[in-house]
Amino acid sequence: MVATIKDIAKYTGLGLATISSYLNGGNVREENRKKIEAAIKELNFEVNEVARGLKTNKTKTIGVVIPELNINFCTEIITAMEDVLRNHGYATIVCDCRTNKELEKNAVDFLFRKRVDGIINMPVNSDGSHLSCFHKAKKPIVLIDRKINGIECDYVLVDNLTAAKNAIQRLIDNGHKRIGMVGGPEDVFTAQERMLGYKLALMEAGIVPEDRLIEHGDYTINGGARCLEKLVKNNRDMTAVFVANHEMTMGAVIGINELGVKIPEELSVIGFDNTEFARACKPKLTIVTQPKEEIGKNVAELILKRIAENKSEQEIEYKIIKLQTDIMEGNSIRNLKK
Amino acid sequence: MVATIKDIAKYTGLGLATISSYLNGGNVREENRKKIEAAIKELNFEVNEVARGLKTNKTKTIGVVIPELNINFCTEIITAMEDVLRNHGYATIVCDCRTNKELEKNAVDFLFRKRVDGIINMPVNSDGSHLSCFHKAKKPIVLIDRKINGIECDYVLVDNLTAAKNAIQRLIDNGHKRIGMVGGPEDVFTAQERMLGYKLALMEAGIVPEDRLIEHGDYTINGGARCLEKLVKNNRDMTAVFVANHEMTMGAVIGINELGVKIPEELSVIGFDNTEFARACKPKLTIVTQPKEEIGKNVAELILKRIAENKSEQEIEYKIIKLQTDIMEGNSIRNLKK
Repeated sequence: MVATIKDIAKYTGLGLATISSYLNGGNVREENRKKIEAAIKELNFEVNEVARGLKTNKTKTIGVVIPELNINFCTEIITAMEDVLRNHGYATIVCDCRTNKELEKNAVDFLFRKRVDGIINMPVNSDGSHLSCFHKAKKPIVLIDRKINGIECDYVLVDNLTAAKNAIQRLIDNGHKRIGMVGGPEDVFTAQERMLGYKLALMEAGIVPEDRLIEHGDYTINGGARCLEKLVKNNRDMTAVFVANHEMTMGAVIGINELGVKIPEELSVIGFDNTEFARACKPKLTIVTQPKEEIGKNVAELILKRIAENKSEQEIEYKIIKLQTDIMEGNSIRNLKK
Repeated sequence: MVATIKDIAKYTGLGLATISSYLNGGNVREENRKKIEAAIKELNFEVNEVARGLKTNKTKTIGVVIPELNINFCTEIITAMEDVLRNHGYATIVCDCRTNKELEKNAVDFLFRKRVDGIINMPVNSDGSHLSCFHKAKKPIVLIDRKINGIECDYVLVDNLTAAKNAIQRLIDNGHKRIGMVGGPEDVFTAQERMLGYKLALMEAGIVPEDRLIEHGDYTINGGARCLEKLVKNNRDMTAVFVANHEMTMGAVIGINELGVKIPEELSVIGFDNTEFARACKPKLTIVTQPKEEIGKNVAELILKRIAENKSEQEIEYKIIKLQTDIMEGNSIRNLKK
């Protein structure tokens, strides 16, 4: 039950005119101001942005919470998403949370108070508790890239397991057996999927995955450089490496350059996610590419659909859209069979 | 003069209770709803977000409008800025406008309706008319990177003229005389500054700038690649090139790789702005670096100061902070004097 101005009048014993004056920035006596503020707090009163001329409770605004603005994967998806939403008359409020669960919760709460019509989130918190306000209010939630147990909502995911499996398969097809992996954080869903794909491909080829060939980075450039250097230092027999996101791929290339290792003569590399960066590398990198534009479009269309249909929770059949990756050919893999 | 609920009551002839019911999502007869909506539109009524429990008209929210989320320069500044603002209890609403003046105006209006306490903008529109609502409401405006004639506000700028001049000087010191320039869009302030710095450095060295050695890109990766290819094709005597932003530097490196031109043996390169990308290049690029973190911090501190002081316009002495760039040494410049 949402509190109205009437409830505040009842609670404070003041007239509607005084309260409306307060709410619209007019002059109100100090003692009345205090009473009204206490009532607002107590009754959890929130003013609709009806001023925007909407009949319903809709603000035509959608909230977006991502881990980092500096992650190219995030910004490219947002750009594609915003284009669709804008064409449907929706504004977006984008918040990043520096990969911090507390800041993520703050951002979600902030957007809820701003009365966004729905929320799009690439979640940092893997238990989903930060989304409970939207869940309780039955406002649409669409999650990107990372599956969360126990939260009922729509998802747009990438088949990261197959992505990694295909990448490793490509290396195996070229005769590589000692293949290193620069993986992501162990508590991030996509990183787990990619690690599983790596191990699965090796197992299917009869190769036992070895811990010494695996490093876990933090999805940052510096992390990628550090992991690559460790792998090279600890594994003289390593002939190839797979790096599991764009930022770490950039870091790995920096590490390789600064160690003076030659691609692909001394080390074959398969990276992740950014075709422009891959083309700027020398030699051109072979990389796994994610369908970022398609992700953005699907996310936008899904949330627009949910907002439009306005069904009760029992009636909704939540969707999990899973998109496939591709491989862009470069010159960073040496064929050991030749 | 801001319209109040009373004004709407007067305009419609309805009681305050009916209007407050409407505003809080309650049931209102269809004909009354229409009347109220007409009044809201006519009187330009806007509801404060007083619900957040603030005494004053402050929402503790700051709006940010940038040209593109995909520009690394923008996201790094935002990240640094948000850290400072967050520590002072401010949330940020970030909008990008796809380098489109109309979308920029929409974003600014949207943020104004959201009653942000101030606006930070890297402007696309160079006449500043899109900011008039903030200007009229005497809400703080801080502009980043691009100076606009006639708008009275604070600025955090980079000394791009000296930046470009120093870059060209570095090439001249190494014996280069036929130096190409991949410049930005002719109507963007920073691009004009960098072009001027390029020409000035040449003139001071007794070299007449030549049009054939200048291409104007659009600050994108593809634009950079296109310009580089043109320059190489049209200027067999060109020994060096300066590229005037990060995205175009990435594009130029792609172009160079795909043409099979050798850095620095066949072409010396000095790029712009992203140390990680420069380190990932082979050979490592020499680049101009901008103090992005310092920009972000200065912007945040400036807007917080303006919000806190709450002075009348006559009393404010607007600040123009101009920061200096640096050069990060790489191996992409050949010394022709040796």
